[in-house]
Amino acid sequence: MSSQSSKSIQLYTVGTPNGHKASIFLEELKAAYGLEYSFQGLSFAKNEQKEPWFLEINPNGRIPAIVDHNRNDFKVFESAAILLYLAQHYDKERKFSFDPSSDEYNEALQWIFFAHGGVGPMQGQANHFYRYAPQQIPYGVKRYQDETKRLYSVLESRLTGRDYLAGPGKGKYSIVDINVWPWVKGYSWAGIESIDEFPNLEKWIKRIQDRPQVAAGLNVPTPFNPPKTKEEEQEAATAARAWIVGGDKDKKE
Amino acid sequence: MSSQSSKSIQLYTVGTPNGHKASIFLEELKAAYGLEYSFQGLSFAKNEQKEPWFLEINPNGRIPAIVDHNRNDFKVFESAAILLYLAQHYDKERKFSFDPSSDEYNEALQWIFFAHGGVGPMQGQANHFYRYAPQQIPYGVKRYQDETKRLYSVLESRLTGRDYLAGPGKGKYSIVDINVWPWVKGYSWAGIESIDEFPNLEKWIKRIQDRPQVAAGLNVPTPFNPPKTKEEEQEAATAARAWIVGGDKDKKE
Repeated sequence: MSSQSSKSIQLYTVGTPNGHKASIFLEELKAAYGLEYSFQGLSFAKNEQKEPWFLEINPNGRIPAIVDHNRNDFKVFESAAILLYLAQHYDKERKFSFDPSSDEYNEALQWIFFAHGGVGPMQGQANHFYRYAPQQIPYGVKRYQDETKRLYSVLESRLTGRDYLAGPGKGKYSIVDINVWPWVKGYSWAGIESIDEFPNLEKWIKRIQDRPQVAAGLNVPTPFNPPKTKEEEQEAATAARAWIVGGDKDKKE
Repeated sequence: MSSQSSKSIQLYTVGTPNGHKASIFLEELKAAYGLEYSFQGLSFAKNEQKEPWFLEINPNGRIPAIVDHNRNDFKVFESAAILLYLAQHYDKERKFSFDPSSDEYNEALQWIFFAHGGVGPMQGQANHFYRYAPQQIPYGVKRYQDETKRLYSVLESRLTGRDYLAGPGKGKYSIVDINVWPWVKGYSWAGIESIDEFPNLEKWIKRIQDRPQVAAGLNVPTPFNPPKTKEEEQEAATAARAWIVGGDKDKKE
């Protein structure tokens, strides 16, 4: 369990796609407005996300979650709800978000739910069957890899002639992108070897990757150091498999 | 393809849990405010949800979706985004929803995302492996039934001492309940034989079921007539299996 000194907003997280959504947006808000936050890494291996103190913060026992010490210790769980909460209270100039009374806000919600109910859960299942499942089940691997690629094809169409997923014209970099980027950029972990067939999606990955705030967010709670070789990938999967029991803890990766 | 005359809001739907979220809330708004809507049933068997005219409305090719003829033909896809859109524009007295500037709104979002990223997708996968998959894969059945029950246990805790999922005190019947009720009430389709271990959840199912607007919503786009015997269940599953190819079309049930 690593931590920094307690500041205004406390993030509880692990270096997974859902965790990175929160830390990337917090880094964007820090750079744009000087918002302070601290973080505490949880250990899946020790099952810390199911300890009673954490279930008080997130009754679902999943990361990420935040406690806002500026606002009477308000607690937020679910990665997308965290993005919308932080936008509502801390993105006052709507640099990365949309006013809730606007049609753009609802348009943003549509793509946020598309990612939250589609890309995240389905790519998570692809990760499970490809990397973690104790049995080889080709049907499961194919089912979820195919569905992940189908969802990518919807994003590819959306990004044709656009730079970002939501906002007028070519779009505006926003929480809608932050909400799905950490999943899409990790396609290879799901056993998807190439996304050459989605050129606009590939350009969008790079466009966002180049932001220093994104790089900073990926280094929370620990330096981002994805496996670089097949051997390193196998080591990482084996280590994770040891604490994935019964298919519960992997979903929020 | 069934339809009614074109009124103010047009709903495109099928009688599935995600479809019923939208029709139940439209029925609530009709009863509370006199909001008019019409609907058009789509045929999964004919793959109508993937036809070009419908992809113009929902690029993901899934039901439900709405077009609001009152508001410049604004289009909304993703069931939860539809609920939030309708609440924003048509639940003016916030009888079923929360003001976006309030903490209650964010609390509601947390439970909406919990359902949209958890209960829906995971129970949908349980349905797939239990009812539709062309191979018997016990690992898949167990994985998703277990996860569905774990998610129910989180709802059970939330409903201990509460009547509804969001709102102060014992809670207020709202889009948060409507967003997950059509899934939970259909637990048996996922092969979950009993929810006796979740008594508060069971009472909550009945509490909502008793509303006439809910009954009316379940009859959109066709009269709700779930299988009553094991034989009828098998017939229904066989019929559905015929058009479920490659694990794409079942997810939004």
